[in-house]
Amino acid sequence: MDSKAYLLQMNGAGVHGKTAVQPKPLSGTGVPGKGVPGSGMHHVNVNGSLYPAKAKSRRQRWEVKASEMANNTLNPIRAIVDGMKLTPNPDKPMIALSIGDPTVFGNLPTDDAVLQAIKDAIDSQKYNGYAPSVGYLKSRQAVANFYSCPEAPLEAEDVVLTSGCSQAIELAISVLCNPGDNILVPCPGFSLYKTLAVSMGIEVKLYNLLPEKSWEIDLQQMESLIDERTSCLIVTNPSNPCGSVFSKEHLQKILKVASKHCVPVLADEIYSDMVFPGCNSPSLASLSSDVPVVSCGGLAKRWLVPGWRMGWILIHDRNEIFGSEIRQGLVKLSQRILGACTIVQGALESILNNTPQSFYSNTVSFLKSNSEICFGELSTVPGLTPVMPSGAMYLMVGIEMKHFPDFKNDVDFTERLVTEQSVFCLPASAFEYPNFFRIVVTVPERMMVEACARIREFCRCHYRPVHRDSNDLDQ
Amino acid sequence: MDSKAYLLQMNGAGVHGKTAVQPKPLSGTGVPGKGVPGSGMHHVNVNGSLYPAKAKSRRQRWEVKASEMANNTLNPIRAIVDGMKLTPNPDKPMIALSIGDPTVFGNLPTDDAVLQAIKDAIDSQKYNGYAPSVGYLKSRQAVANFYSCPEAPLEAEDVVLTSGCSQAIELAISVLCNPGDNILVPCPGFSLYKTLAVSMGIEVKLYNLLPEKSWEIDLQQMESLIDERTSCLIVTNPSNPCGSVFSKEHLQKILKVASKHCVPVLADEIYSDMVFPGCNSPSLASLSSDVPVVSCGGLAKRWLVPGWRMGWILIHDRNEIFGSEIRQGLVKLSQRILGACTIVQGALESILNNTPQSFYSNTVSFLKSNSEICFGELSTVPGLTPVMPSGAMYLMVGIEMKHFPDFKNDVDFTERLVTEQSVFCLPASAFEYPNFFRIVVTVPERMMVEACARIREFCRCHYRPVHRDSNDLDQ
Ligand SMILES: Cc1ncc(COP(=O)(O)O)c(C=O)c1O
Ligand SMILES: Cc1ncc(COP(=O)(O)O)c(C=O)c1O
Repeated sequence: MDSKAYLLQMNGAGVHGKTAVQPKPLSGTGVPGKGVPGSGMHHVNVNGSLYPAKAKSRRQRWEVKASEMANNTLNPIRAIVDGMKLTPNPDKPMIALSIGDPTVFGNLPTDDAVLQAIKDAIDSQKYNGYAPSVGYLKSRQAVANFYSCPEAPLEAEDVVLTSGCSQAIELAISVLCNPGDNILVPCPGFSLYKTLAVSMGIEVKLYNLLPEKSWEIDLQQMESLIDERTSCLIVTNPSNPCGSVFSKEHLQKILKVASKHCVPVLADEIYSDMVFPGCNSPSLASLSSDVPVVSCGGLAKRWLVPGWRMGWILIHDRNEIFGSEIRQGLVKLSQRILGACTIVQGALESILNNTPQSFYSNTVSFLKSNSEICFGELSTVPGLTPVMPSGAMYLMVGIEMKHFPDFKNDVDFTERLVTEQSVFCLPASAFEYPNFFRIVVTVPERMMVEACARIREFCRCHYRPVHRDSNDLDQ
Repeated sequence: MDSKAYLLQMNGAGVHGKTAVQPKPLSGTGVPGKGVPGSGMHHVNVNGSLYPAKAKSRRQRWEVKASEMANNTLNPIRAIVDGMKLTPNPDKPMIALSIGDPTVFGNLPTDDAVLQAIKDAIDSQKYNGYAPSVGYLKSRQAVANFYSCPEAPLEAEDVVLTSGCSQAIELAISVLCNPGDNILVPCPGFSLYKTLAVSMGIEVKLYNLLPEKSWEIDLQQMESLIDERTSCLIVTNPSNPCGSVFSKEHLQKILKVASKHCVPVLADEIYSDMVFPGCNSPSLASLSSDVPVVSCGGLAKRWLVPGWRMGWILIHDRNEIFGSEIRQGLVKLSQRILGACTIVQGALESILNNTPQSFYSNTVSFLKSNSEICFGELSTVPGLTPVMPSGAMYLMVGIEMKHFPDFKNDVDFTERLVTEQSVFCLPASAFEYPNFFRIVVTVPERMMVEACARIREFCRCHYRPVHRDSNDLDQ
């Protein structure tokens, strides 16, 4: 009798739904406490034969492989850095100008108001439970208020709180793109876009930034990449790795292309407002009333707390092009793993409202001053072409490879810079941009000066002037 | 000349790599500062014709749709609850027994040691920067030490810290399963497994839990679902929504099936050690030396801080079946959005080492006592069949629908329970298990008693004895 019940069960289970098999619960079969004899299960004879019917279609030995998605989650920074032989010169202390984390040297602590806000949130004991998956309404409202402007008004419902800007980007790409679509990504650019997209089966098309035009976008080339499967244009402003800040006019031109081809924009504005004095950077969304813009940001950089994993998506859709579908899609996606830590969410309103203006301006002044030191030093080094940044916390340096025949490429160059001078800069191959390297300008001034002196010395040792007659020996 | 450079660019861009187009940076072309005239870009004549070559393949109007993945991210709890008319009886204050969040009533605060650990982490200022994507080594070591046992030893490298147990589950499914694979999931069971799997194109097969056997697995039926595309068996122990705790013997039988068919196990052990006094629950991994087990857990439930989003994966692979591939896959996947908030990570060692034993045992005693009250009350209500839990924080109640002809199903039943008695229990349809409802037993005792009295009253009003002659009127 049991085995008959079991057979019925089997048959029921054989009719698979598209996504799930729903077997009928046994609770109604009237044999409580008298189910399947657990011990005999390995020898159960379900179909009158000694061997289970599907035996040959079942696995006979262990064979567990990582999924394609895991294998396709490629982080070029790790791939390149892990492949480098980074053995510093034992006579010189290491200076790492490679890590996009402003906290590593301790010279850029966050503001006391930020720490106090967190402690208040803990003491209140109000932020230990689950928040809504898109974040507390109060915290979303605080972000909306902070970023709202007359040209691009924001309400709480336009804000989704996320676990870092990285999750904001992940959700934005996830909601806008299907496998087989393509997205436009800056080159050089932050590597996460490609890492995420490729793992999702989304094609990445790189558009060029022009170093000779302060890293403005090559708009014609960008436009030429657009086709009907282009589901998103990613704009990073201010830029990692370039430290560039687009002018209002350039942003307007970008929006014109997006508008012409009806491509929504993902604005990665994690460095928003981290622009040097004298420079101005409106948000992309404030410059367009038709192009729908998903702006991604967070506390990581401007508030100097990247580990806290507090990010957000701002939905700008004044023309109702996203409509409710994209918003609902974001809500649904946010329910997969829920968002940011509630303690930080609970502190968010106070962080945004109480951080003194001086904190922001001191940070930016420091970054500008360090950038000027670095640019000033390196622009007089033969063979190097630094590009002066206007914001964020990075500076890109071109390597005139023809003058450095000792090295195959930027990876080789930066590897040897570690070996000889104990200075580590990220080769820009990590940003798909060979023959450059990136310097993080958050290090203490003293170290920046020392690092530049060592880079000068390194280049002096390896620089070779180029002559028409390559047999000419110089020096 | 510019347009020639542009054409070259176009051609270069036309040769797409499989995943990314890598245009040659223009920096070497020798026309610095003289790029594309931005203003004319809409009328650029790239191929000698007045219209761009690919014009017809480009989008002419806005049409932004949410991705298939977003559309396929279905949360059955939301789908069901959002569809219910939840209008409480204005004469009775609402009692929500529906929310799996132990903090909502304030009667179960976390321990002071936990709060102190967090405040110390903040004051140290050591935990503001990025942690490694899998978590600080020290914090992983602390988790390893906490869960290591002679039968299932753990090292720091066996631990991946995640943003809540939800992300642990997401990473585990992501690394083990490809689209087209299937996973085995308990029924009734926590809905996230299916939500995640379906959105990833993974088929979900539900195996039955048997209420009449304290929700043990119907092992034969479970085994019958396995085929060669079965890439993971999910076991939730202790269980949400059942509150059941499997015996050592039953766990061993589950492992035997996994071993026989070479299917790795995802053990969702977020409620581990939340078992009532007298009951014992070894971890799955401690009972097998051959089956590779990914155990998912976190601070959410046992430490009563679900909002903090601190979860972990414990990799048990004593037979080297996962090998380095699964581990590396998890590392790669963790780099997508990075993991848990660093403040909580920084506090983790202290939380695990300094939370007093009395905190854990008080919580569990309370849950047991509340469960007994609830079970005792409801087991004498005609038409209801509660199943006494042994752990976690839930209790399932069967509805003998034939005695409640007023209601179509469990959703109808629980909806009317709100309308009439202002008591909200989650219909177990949300767990793919109709004709049951789930009670969360974390509410203050007083409310539990009151809720049970109201449920009794509700059932008294609607209960109809069943007679052979359906025309018989009773009462
Ligand atoms: C351009 C850009 N976007 C996003 C991020 C990720 O920010 P988060 O740490 O908040 O995830 C970074 C981090 O370096 C970044 O440089
Ligand atoms: C069985 C089970 N697994 C996982 C989770 C998710 O835990 P977290 O809040 O840490 O993501 C829950 C939450 O209710 C659960 O019940």
